[in-house]
Amino acid sequence: MNTIDLLLQHRSIRKYKAQSIEKEKLNRILEAGVRGSNTGNMQIYSIVVTQDAERKKELAKHHFGQKMVVDAGAVVTVCVDINRYHKWCMLRNAGTAYDNFLWFATGVVDATIVTQNICVAAEAEGLGFCYLGTVLYNAPEIANFLELPKGVVPVTTITVGYPDEMPELTERLPLEGVVHYERYNDYSDSDINRIFEEKENLPFSKEMVKVNNTENLAQIFTQIRYKKADNVMMSKKLLNFLHESCFMNND
Amino acid sequence: MNTIDLLLQHRSIRKYKAQSIEKEKLNRILEAGVRGSNTGNMQIYSIVVTQDAERKKELAKHHFGQKMVVDAGAVVTVCVDINRYHKWCMLRNAGTAYDNFLWFATGVVDATIVTQNICVAAEAEGLGFCYLGTVLYNAPEIANFLELPKGVVPVTTITVGYPDEMPELTERLPLEGVVHYERYNDYSDSDINRIFEEKENLPFSKEMVKVNNTENLAQIFTQIRYKKADNVMMSKKLLNFLHESCFMNND
Repeated sequence: MNTIDLLLQHRSIRKYKAQSIEKEKLNRILEAGVRGSNTGNMQIYSIVVTQDAERKKELAKHHFGQKMVVDAGAVVTVCVDINRYHKWCMLRNAGTAYDNFLWFATGVVDATIVTQNICVAAEAEGLGFCYLGTVLYNAPEIANFLELPKGVVPVTTITVGYPDEMPELTERLPLEGVVHYERYNDYSDSDINRIFEEKENLPFSKEMVKVNNTENLAQIFTQIRYKKADNVMMSKKLLNFLHESCFMNND
Repeated sequence: MNTIDLLLQHRSIRKYKAQSIEKEKLNRILEAGVRGSNTGNMQIYSIVVTQDAERKKELAKHHFGQKMVVDAGAVVTVCVDINRYHKWCMLRNAGTAYDNFLWFATGVVDATIVTQNICVAAEAEGLGFCYLGTVLYNAPEIANFLELPKGVVPVTTITVGYPDEMPELTERLPLEGVVHYERYNDYSDSDINRIFEEKENLPFSKEMVKVNNTENLAQIFTQIRYKKADNVMMSKKLLNFLHESCFMNND
């Protein structure tokens, strides 16, 4: 399959065969990962691979017990990492400059570029993957479990393995709903209604509204899936962890 | 070229031919972008494309005047965007829940996945690209220029166009220097010396040290390229902008 079709045909895979990933194949997709662009070629990230069966079970607890964490051939956690660079700078009498918020933000971008390259490479090799947003909810617990030192914060986690399902493509908003030319054209009410119409009218969306007993699809997100109180609590937790991890020395 | 080789052969392109990108081709790479994974399929991002010659000149000023911004066929700025989702939720009487730090961090990951998919697709279509880290330094000015409303923060910018150069592959640290299995193995001094040895001994690195009149390569980064005082100033600026943009309502 050519690369464009590969990207257009992406589905997240949550069910995996009990088949381990060949060491060579894993190395190849990790190599493809680190070939991604990164700021100043400083490589301020680290990749932690979990494959041990018992360790996957423990790690799954920090990802809301999602079964795919246990079943996947590998769980890959990509971290912003200024620890390695800091150690190099200190050894070279260069001081340090990266324990602040700018470099956390920069690092999240760089770590995600690595992760997405790994994902694209994995699919090219016949593997499937799924991102786990839970890594940002439980960053301190996951950092503790992976024995991350200060200066290292986990920001993406993917499960990777041989697919045991072939789900339908999920919908997307129409391209014109997310792309702007020259200037951001802010959305009128009728724009919003038009952009979200197809999504709201999908049989799956209607079924979800029925099952969850809400008035509409939007309420499933704000009232059930990603609630304000949870989001506020997890925002505080994440910011506290950035302080502890030395990414908030902004004075 | 197969996808793995495409990823392994990536070079950032900073010189572009004076050849515009066909509308169909641009649409195809943007479509490949939005097919990327995203949290809850909420698509909390927007893509702003700058192609107008005068606008590119103005935008370049916010990217330290880098010429590639003017010369590229398109400058693509990808933003975390809770504005569109918020408007949908309000129209549906669902309240809102995403004006906090967790969703900024989540959004940076999602926006970067889109961006990197666009990058991979661009290369597959014979185009080249380069990431501009300056977007995080001057996010408020760029937001103002692109007329972004509250709830929309630019986090990645890439220049895209037909390559007019074929630079050498840049080096990377050895894979074992950035990958950990099961647990993070913190680096001893000798680990650091070993991991950075090849990079430090490149002719290009040695030339840079000579030209910049520093003791070593690390000092070029901390004393010239990315200095602490600049980083601290830009950290404050970025955090202030997150407050203004309604991503810091964490109570």
